[in-house]
Amino acid sequence: MKYFTQFESKKLADQLIEKALSYKTNPLVDHKKGIGKRIGCIFLNPSLRTRASTQIAALNLGMEPIVMNMDKEGWALEMKEGAVMNKGTVEHIKDAAAVLGSYFDILAIRAFPSLTNKQEDIEDFTFNQFIKYSGVPVISLESAIRHPLQSLADMVTIHEHTREIKKPKVVLTWAPHIKAIPHAVANSFAEWTLGCEHDLTITHPVGYELDPMFTKGAHIELDQKKALEDADFVYVKNWSAFNDYGKIVTTDSSWMLTEKHFKHAKNAKVMHCLPVRRNVELSDEILDGKRSLVQEQANNRIYAAQSVISHILG
Amino acid sequence: MKYFTQFESKKLADQLIEKALSYKTNPLVDHKKGIGKRIGCIFLNPSLRTRASTQIAALNLGMEPIVMNMDKEGWALEMKEGAVMNKGTVEHIKDAAAVLGSYFDILAIRAFPSLTNKQEDIEDFTFNQFIKYSGVPVISLESAIRHPLQSLADMVTIHEHTREIKKPKVVLTWAPHIKAIPHAVANSFAEWTLGCEHDLTITHPVGYELDPMFTKGAHIELDQKKALEDADFVYVKNWSAFNDYGKIVTTDSSWMLTEKHFKHAKNAKVMHCLPVRRNVELSDEILDGKRSLVQEQANNRIYAAQSVISHILG
Amino acid sequence: MKYFTQFESKKLADQLIEKALSYKTNPLVDHKKGIGKRIGCIFLNPSLRTRASTQIAALNLGMEPIVMNMDKEGWALEMKEGAVMNKGTVEHIKDAAAVLGSYFDILAIRAFPSLTNKQEDIEDFTFNQFIKYSGVPVISLESAIRHPLQSLADMVTIHEHTREIKKPKVVLTWAPHIKAIPHAVANSFAEWTLGCEHDLTITHPVGYELDPMFTKGAHIELDQKKALEDADFVYVKNWSAFNDYGKIVTTDSSWMLTEKHFKHAKNAKVMHCLPVRRNVELSDEILDGKRSLVQEQANNRIYAAQSVISHILG
Repeated sequence: MKYFTQFESKKLADQLIEKALSYKTNPLVDHKKGIGKRIGCIFLNPSLRTRASTQIAALNLGMEPIVMNMDKEGWALEMKEGAVMNKGTVEHIKDAAAVLGSYFDILAIRAFPSLTNKQEDIEDFTFNQFIKYSGVPVISLESAIRHPLQSLADMVTIHEHTREIKKPKVVLTWAPHIKAIPHAVANSFAEWTLGCEHDLTITHPVGYELDPMFTKGAHIELDQKKALEDADFVYVKNWSAFNDYGKIVTTDSSWMLTEKHFKHAKNAKVMHCLPVRRNVELSDEILDGKRSLVQEQANNRIYAAQSVISHILG
Repeated sequence: MKYFTQFESKKLADQLIEKALSYKTNPLVDHKKGIGKRIGCIFLNPSLRTRASTQIAALNLGMEPIVMNMDKEGWALEMKEGAVMNKGTVEHIKDAAAVLGSYFDILAIRAFPSLTNKQEDIEDFTFNQFIKYSGVPVISLESAIRHPLQSLADMVTIHEHTREIKKPKVVLTWAPHIKAIPHAVANSFAEWTLGCEHDLTITHPVGYELDPMFTKGAHIELDQKKALEDADFVYVKNWSAFNDYGKIVTTDSSWMLTEKHFKHAKNAKVMHCLPVRRNVELSDEILDGKRSLVQEQANNRIYAAQSVISHILG
Repeated sequence: MKYFTQFESKKLADQLIEKALSYKTNPLVDHKKGIGKRIGCIFLNPSLRTRASTQIAALNLGMEPIVMNMDKEGWALEMKEGAVMNKGTVEHIKDAAAVLGSYFDILAIRAFPSLTNKQEDIEDFTFNQFIKYSGVPVISLESAIRHPLQSLADMVTIHEHTREIKKPKVVLTWAPHIKAIPHAVANSFAEWTLGCEHDLTITHPVGYELDPMFTKGAHIELDQKKALEDADFVYVKNWSAFNDYGKIVTTDSSWMLTEKHFKHAKNAKVMHCLPVRRNVELSDEILDGKRSLVQEQANNRIYAAQSVISHILG
């Protein structure tokens, strides 16, 4: 495996989930595997969990992680081929990615979408420019349209809580938010859930249809109440409109889950990738109650990342 | 010991001082103690000495320190229970602290006071929210009201220079500054000096009375000249008013120590936690002269932190 | 060697080049040399390559690098002796450098010029204040007037491509830029090229004469076309005026090299320290073509730094 950017196959997903669970039991079992090797973690956008969990995963494997917060360190990259660089950008991605590729054994990159240029975002332009020019294995730490390490951690979490269910009913529900949020987490969650052959229902207000590329095979149910019936896992996430790109169509607070939403899903577990806007996206009641798996998901980020890095190291 | 946030007992202080001195002689003696363990250093406010010395202390013990500058990385935390998070904060301390607690064996946290909400500052609200929700040992890297690692380093420094004095006379003197400065260093210094059973005199202009919780047992002498007589150690520090909370009452430059202030304290050593505003808080003459222990204090920060981390590791 | 700040002698340069080449072949051969030792990397200005390559070089030697981005972390240093610090600076270089010197075995420092105070810049005032007060070996990561690690990497690169040329013809050509850029890279490149006894020609528009301290012994040829004839290596770099200090005299785009500039230098290799403003300083055609050595230079930064750190460790 050279690139970890999206769901590839159920077989690989199963392998990565198993490996993650084994690292969770024994984090240091492979702590000599990465000695003398380096991972460069490049953040074009802020990060807390992703940064810390990736660093820890690398350290558990004996690697040396070096973090570069390019968003905060004023290193504006030029992305366009053939650009005459007489404006604000100080270095072309071509040159920067190639240098970083020669400095590191693996690059891990976070590059959010603009939410203003739909075509560029759909093509995952910035992220793919890094892949194109770096020449080394690349791990996505969230690109414009996917967040595969989050999804792998989510699959690990679902796996841990599904021991006796054959095919869990998973619901992905839109939640309100005050800002226009990318689609990456929702897209990836759908992609991995379907790829792992769970039963996926997606629910959202009219206008929040996701890119069909990611939702093919899912049940779309615009009535949240119906969607939640008999759910085993409910994944809560805000996203902005995909059709009317990047827009906030509604912030209808009735979509925020409270205990009363679970009348017909008594045993449903609730998931969220964090950070969560409490009492906007999700109620304190749910987050602080027994349904919540959010802390387990966050903890599994370490072992998901460790599994992927280990797989790339070979 | 699970939390290092304040003075606990003379017995513990003596142990920590001895351990710090032994690490100063042989920094790497326990360099395998922390292997495979991680300390997360969270800065809600800027830091130079504290950050570097804590990282070094952890590395000396074989631990992996990971620094998160949350002030600079735009990760605004919500602190209030039950908040409806539809404003500027992106994550609740509940969620962030719990995740960080699951990622690290020890958390070390810097959280300055607002100097505007006296009640919250007195309760050390932000810092205590981290303790409440992280679930792992926490070390204070300066909270709203205390800076115990600084005070431990100060006690180590006093110990090193007190070999032949039975009960040194220690003077804590207010000094001028152009900004409103927290009380944490002054509070902690008083707390530890009294706890270590030194003879403490505090001197300051009228209006700069410290919180009596920290100064009980100290001599208060508003005449700086009298206070300094026969001093063995003079600790220089600015702080803003506690009663008229956070205000600058005076910046009277006659309070800035020069050599002539030491007419009746010929052998007094001068201490300051740094950073120091030269020729505002303290004169070049004193800082560059033989009385100054400021560099020794700064150097002892490493061994104070190492002693505390080692004690928590057990 | 205590300080690595400039060219010292051909003998030392040859040793460092050889060592760098040997580390390039076997980066981890000395990975126990620096165990238990720390390098503090202090950036008063942004950095990508220099920061990453210095960290990697230190890690390859088993050292622990700690990075302090003082520009971004709001730690404004006072540089003037005797200053009354009642303005924006929070700590005097005297105090900060001494503390950092007591925390680290080696300090590595980046301090750009102001380009407004010529005298201070020429004296490399900020950088020399660090040297004066830190008390430990100091490596320049680019000062106001020199960038010796870049130049060492450049000499390594030239060495690798000069196997059969006795005395290569090296041309340093000014290139257009939209900002006023320091002289450090150009100065150092001239200093090292001449010191390594290559044949150096410098070409630039009238008004861009460099400080003669660095160019003594070079041919100055204001006609770029003539300068480039039969060149083996062409080093491309912008700099602002030295005489009319810090000014942009012209941005004449005919100085930007394209393939047609090499009519009389068929085999010339092109060098640039990066970051490069594409199609302003240098054309895509050259950068993406076979003449370009820029990626090799960047890669050699690791081994140049490793060679210097190793030499200081002794």
